[in-house]
Amino acid sequence: MRALRKTDRSPGAELVEIEIPTPGDDEVLVRVHGASICGTDLHMLEWNEWAHKRVGRVPMTFGHEVAGTVQAVGDEVHHLQAGAFVAAETHIACGRCSTCQTGRAHICENLEILGVDTEGAFAEYVVLPAQNAWVVGEGIDADVASIMEPFGNAVHATFGTGGGEDIATGVVAVIGCGPIGMFAVGVARSLGAFKVIAIEPNDYRRQKAAEMGADVLVDPTETDPVDAVLEQTKAAGAEVVLEMSGNARAIDQGTRMLARGGRMSLLGLPDSSVTLDLNDQVIFKEARLQGITGREMFRTWQQTTTLLSTGRVDVSPVITHRFPLDRWQDAFDTTASGSSGKVILMPDGTGSDRAPT
Amino acid sequence: MRALRKTDRSPGAELVEIEIPTPGDDEVLVRVHGASICGTDLHMLEWNEWAHKRVGRVPMTFGHEVAGTVQAVGDEVHHLQAGAFVAAETHIACGRCSTCQTGRAHICENLEILGVDTEGAFAEYVVLPAQNAWVVGEGIDADVASIMEPFGNAVHATFGTGGGEDIATGVVAVIGCGPIGMFAVGVARSLGAFKVIAIEPNDYRRQKAAEMGADVLVDPTETDPVDAVLEQTKAAGAEVVLEMSGNARAIDQGTRMLARGGRMSLLGLPDSSVTLDLNDQVIFKEARLQGITGREMFRTWQQTTTLLSTGRVDVSPVITHRFPLDRWQDAFDTTASGSSGKVILMPDGTGSDRAPT
Amino acid sequence: MRALRKTDRSPGAELVEIEIPTPGDDEVLVRVHGASICGTDLHMLEWNEWAHKRVGRVPMTFGHEVAGTVQAVGDEVHHLQAGAFVAAETHIACGRCSTCQTGRAHICENLEILGVDTEGAFAEYVVLPAQNAWVVGEGIDADVASIMEPFGNAVHATFGTGGGEDIATGVVAVIGCGPIGMFAVGVARSLGAFKVIAIEPNDYRRQKAAEMGADVLVDPTETDPVDAVLEQTKAAGAEVVLEMSGNARAIDQGTRMLARGGRMSLLGLPDSSVTLDLNDQVIFKEARLQGITGREMFRTWQQTTTLLSTGRVDVSPVITHRFPLDRWQDAFDTTASGSSGKVILMPDGTGSDRAPT
Amino acid sequence: MRALRKTDRSPGAELVEIEIPTPGDDEVLVRVHGASICGTDLHMLEWNEWAHKRVGRVPMTFGHEVAGTVQAVGDEVHHLQAGAFVAAETHIACGRCSTCQTGRAHICENLEILGVDTEGAFAEYVVLPAQNAWVVGEGIDADVASIMEPFGNAVHATFGTGGGEDIATGVVAVIGCGPIGMFAVGVARSLGAFKVIAIEPNDYRRQKAAEMGADVLVDPTETDPVDAVLEQTKAAGAEVVLEMSGNARAIDQGTRMLARGGRMSLLGLPDSSVTLDLNDQVIFKEARLQGITGREMFRTWQQTTTLLSTGRVDVSPVITHRFPLDRWQDAFDTTASGSSGKVILMPDGTGSDRAPT
Repeated sequence: MRALRKTDRSPGAELVEIEIPTPGDDEVLVRVHGASICGTDLHMLEWNEWAHKRVGRVPMTFGHEVAGTVQAVGDEVHHLQAGAFVAAETHIACGRCSTCQTGRAHICENLEILGVDTEGAFAEYVVLPAQNAWVVGEGIDADVASIMEPFGNAVHATFGTGGGEDIATGVVAVIGCGPIGMFAVGVARSLGAFKVIAIEPNDYRRQKAAEMGADVLVDPTETDPVDAVLEQTKAAGAEVVLEMSGNARAIDQGTRMLARGGRMSLLGLPDSSVTLDLNDQVIFKEARLQGITGREMFRTWQQTTTLLSTGRVDVSPVITHRFPLDRWQDAFDTTASGSSGKVILMPDGTGSDRAPT
Repeated sequence: MRALRKTDRSPGAELVEIEIPTPGDDEVLVRVHGASICGTDLHMLEWNEWAHKRVGRVPMTFGHEVAGTVQAVGDEVHHLQAGAFVAAETHIACGRCSTCQTGRAHICENLEILGVDTEGAFAEYVVLPAQNAWVVGEGIDADVASIMEPFGNAVHATFGTGGGEDIATGVVAVIGCGPIGMFAVGVARSLGAFKVIAIEPNDYRRQKAAEMGADVLVDPTETDPVDAVLEQTKAAGAEVVLEMSGNARAIDQGTRMLARGGRMSLLGLPDSSVTLDLNDQVIFKEARLQGITGREMFRTWQQTTTLLSTGRVDVSPVITHRFPLDRWQDAFDTTASGSSGKVILMPDGTGSDRAPT
Repeated sequence: MRALRKTDRSPGAELVEIEIPTPGDDEVLVRVHGASICGTDLHMLEWNEWAHKRVGRVPMTFGHEVAGTVQAVGDEVHHLQAGAFVAAETHIACGRCSTCQTGRAHICENLEILGVDTEGAFAEYVVLPAQNAWVVGEGIDADVASIMEPFGNAVHATFGTGGGEDIATGVVAVIGCGPIGMFAVGVARSLGAFKVIAIEPNDYRRQKAAEMGADVLVDPTETDPVDAVLEQTKAAGAEVVLEMSGNARAIDQGTRMLARGGRMSLLGLPDSSVTLDLNDQVIFKEARLQGITGREMFRTWQQTTTLLSTGRVDVSPVITHRFPLDRWQDAFDTTASGSSGKVILMPDGTGSDRAPT
Repeated sequence: MRALRKTDRSPGAELVEIEIPTPGDDEVLVRVHGASICGTDLHMLEWNEWAHKRVGRVPMTFGHEVAGTVQAVGDEVHHLQAGAFVAAETHIACGRCSTCQTGRAHICENLEILGVDTEGAFAEYVVLPAQNAWVVGEGIDADVASIMEPFGNAVHATFGTGGGEDIATGVVAVIGCGPIGMFAVGVARSLGAFKVIAIEPNDYRRQKAAEMGADVLVDPTETDPVDAVLEQTKAAGAEVVLEMSGNARAIDQGTRMLARGGRMSLLGLPDSSVTLDLNDQVIFKEARLQGITGREMFRTWQQTTTLLSTGRVDVSPVITHRFPLDRWQDAFDTTASGSSGKVILMPDGTGSDRAPT
């Protein structure tokens, strides 16, 4: 099969021919329909400092946001059969540690990530642990299924670790409108937010946030986003801030636009340490900073399925490009261009550079 | 002023001329714009068993769902001025008991109800405790403001005492679609419910539920509602049941249509004790039965304001009739007819029997 | 091996010799050290109406509260080895249904119960699904480990499905002080309850509740328990009621002794339907009735381990008798006598009728 | 009356004779029995940078942790009479802003602090808003009542803004064992923590933490506290960290000792911005940083009353010194010495430098 692989601990990747893998006893073999490109994949292609430190295994196929059809199952797999169309939960949990045993497998103490720690999905076939294969039900377009994983990030960040009760009827500020931020705008909107304020410097992305339902758009290069949020809220601040940028300055601004008693979900990954005014922005306001990673297994997948299958959230504005696997370089360039939403590689030959129907 | 009063401990009421009341030190005098009719008011008019037991004070003006303009304030009232347009929270709390002291004034140990324990609002003027006057902001139609109180019941029942996290993406069954049930359909819909199932025998009301956004309509005289909900949920049941009927059989059915781990908000008041299968329907399912009364003071009012002022919920299908005060008998007859939503008395002379614009 | 089996769909049981079972691929074989007797086991012995309806499989070894040493593991079991000392979670969950997928396996849609639906533990050996074997760590006496399952019931009921925040500094009434009620007294006490009120007609059990830390003892045959709780709380009622009796009248009383905004955990199983005054005792008080079954898998087991291994709760007053397997009739008689706490059968020959050291 | 006042915007204070104040309409006049010294009072005495920026009103009597007897009440005060013994909630809330209206008055948008923004309590008499006077019930020693306010800080930090469900059976690390940290050790212990780890460089204070029930003592000048907590928890980290030091380095360490999914309550006030590794210590771990200030009005006061009046927490090890008002300089020196717990000024002449009985 063809697979897009990191072959060296340096920038670049190679599309090579390798053996179709064989699933282990508790694994399934999936023929990949779509595999979308994540910021992490860009980092691995470019082999930035994070990739250099984090990735131990080279050569390795990368890519992890994936959906496709089960082709074969291992001997210990009893609940899935060949033919099932599945999307991948990419957090591979041990099932035995304390967090796994208390329903929080997504922060497993022994966590591995598909396509980062294990052979990934930019290939014609991928092997998944059977427990990581989520059966995609009716009402979700097959082409869209590979984005259930990053959409799930947005869902989990929006609900937070509580129940998202602060979203309904609250003011929600989304900082950073890459694809996950765009999704978060749509999720917050569908859960009854009073007002969704999207903060994003890139014109294209800000426009996409508007298409996803943002009530207010803020270009932080033109307007101070803290001022903008305070003005929109009569100085009270936003009940919820969804931090998707990973920008240290934006995170600090996030604390400053937060209402008393507010909650900031931190999902964007800053590339170094972050300096905060805890006194005035967190302690006296009794604000809450909540780290968010992955998706709750599998509450978030149920929520994701509901939001997508009912059309409560229409992600079509975000799915901007599809490419066949051999045009991977174009796909990565498009992802990096800043003028794209989600870009999907279609290793089964169904992809093209047209927008999805 | 003219006031509609219970003058005897027997069926009926009288529209009489009485003195305009004077507000006490911590009270405000409100010129009534609209006062909508509640089921409780019907009971008081008809003087049923509940009214006979519950109401101690006769003669008394009744009516409690009210909005109007502050005319005068007492000496100890410092935060409200004449001219403010306010709606009434009808639960009069002591502010000093244990529940009041812990932010749960709506279940105050010394609770009194406007128009039941104190002089009410079917009159040209009403006196309110200053703390019970909620300033109605922009975006809410004055004619509609008197229904903020029962709408708030629906909001509180839907959110529950937690945060309503089970509403977003869950299946919600609303049992009984009188006005509060109709409102609840709209609230659940606006908070991102996966599916809203409205159960109501009256054709007119069921149609109103549809207008408010119900996805599925069930006539329990035609179809077993438990079967209907189980069929709609692939036998899993509804995550949330909002019980608005007060019908003992319907409450039992509510427990049977509830999903494992589900929540039933009980707001409808049964007129006698209720028999339940706790074993199979509550204990083994770990279901939760949650009593709901009034509105959280004033979280629910903030939520109500958001939902109404943004148009997230459009209550216009529910506001079906308006009458001047002297046509009170027509107004009550219309309320009792089963072919009405909310009926509003307009003591300031602006009412008519046309639907509101 | 010797096994105590139901051999007929009628009262009685037989201690018979059968083959040692072989574990399946994902199962483990456990040599039983202790197997304690539950009310369910009494019902199965006596073959009451519940047993007649519920139990489908006869002949079958019964008993489910069990701890012992792993002797052998199936081919698909990778995290447990022979020699491990384990206690059994007795709820056998499918792992695939909606509730399992959202961290609520204890209310699995396809739930089976060890020793009720499957071959049980009153035997020298028992086979468990590997995922149901909880490794008992240091600090918990081997003789006591078989009671971790019913102790876990008490822990789960006390914490409730929230976080038990109402226990700390609240008034807790425990209705019914069989072994699980006795345990619950100790758990509530260790979590910082303001006052624990134990309600139990049996003198022996009430005394045991005192030994477990009850602050107030109420004999409901002498004193009205509702009056007693209201008196102890200056008429406010108990923030938490833990209903362990399954007695219909006591459940009704439980609602009447509950504070405004209070919570009643329902664990005791009434043998028929229950009639409640929902109006005054649930709706107007915004009380919450919460069904409780089993143990959260495995949050409750972690809590149980902490409480027992640290000595926060000392269960020794409750462990009143141990018997060898061939004295099973004495063990059941003792259990039924009303003058016992927990009675443990010791199929490995270590038991005796002395109290544990 | 005698009052200890800041008379200049510079270090120092003066004990002067001033008029006994007169309560306003909604205020009460309290004869001060005890007024304990807080770190804030030290800052005001020393007139450090914080005081210079924060304090607007000079001359002013300072001091805010106070209890005493009501002498007179204003015209609008109807629920309190002269003779009541009260402790002061020191957060003066407006009652009308959004946070006040949703039961979070302690983070009122218009918050004022007794003795910082208004005339304080190091005096023979103090005026309090009537709503800030908490009646001290039976079972709490009058001498101890003035520490209910800082004890409440510890209670609120320990419970957090949820319900403290992570305390019960969890590992709790307390960073910084000044008086509030000492109290927090006792509170966590009484709520069923699995293990309480006290981290404090000062030998005297660390010893006090031990007296309050700490299971493990860590001197961070001898042992790396992150290593110590990880070692005590088999590398899992603490479920709850209570940050009482306000030390920037300790706050960073707090995030590093936190378990996956853990919660850090931030109460200590850092004197400048704080740099954190959000990536590894917050986001990937899904940790929660929760600002804590003041006390929930008045849930925390109810909890405080319970814990103190029942003896669940015995604060006597923390109350180390009492002084008459004229020995205020000795009292402040003792507070600053690092060899004291809580130091109480007794303006009514009952104080002495002996430890309380």
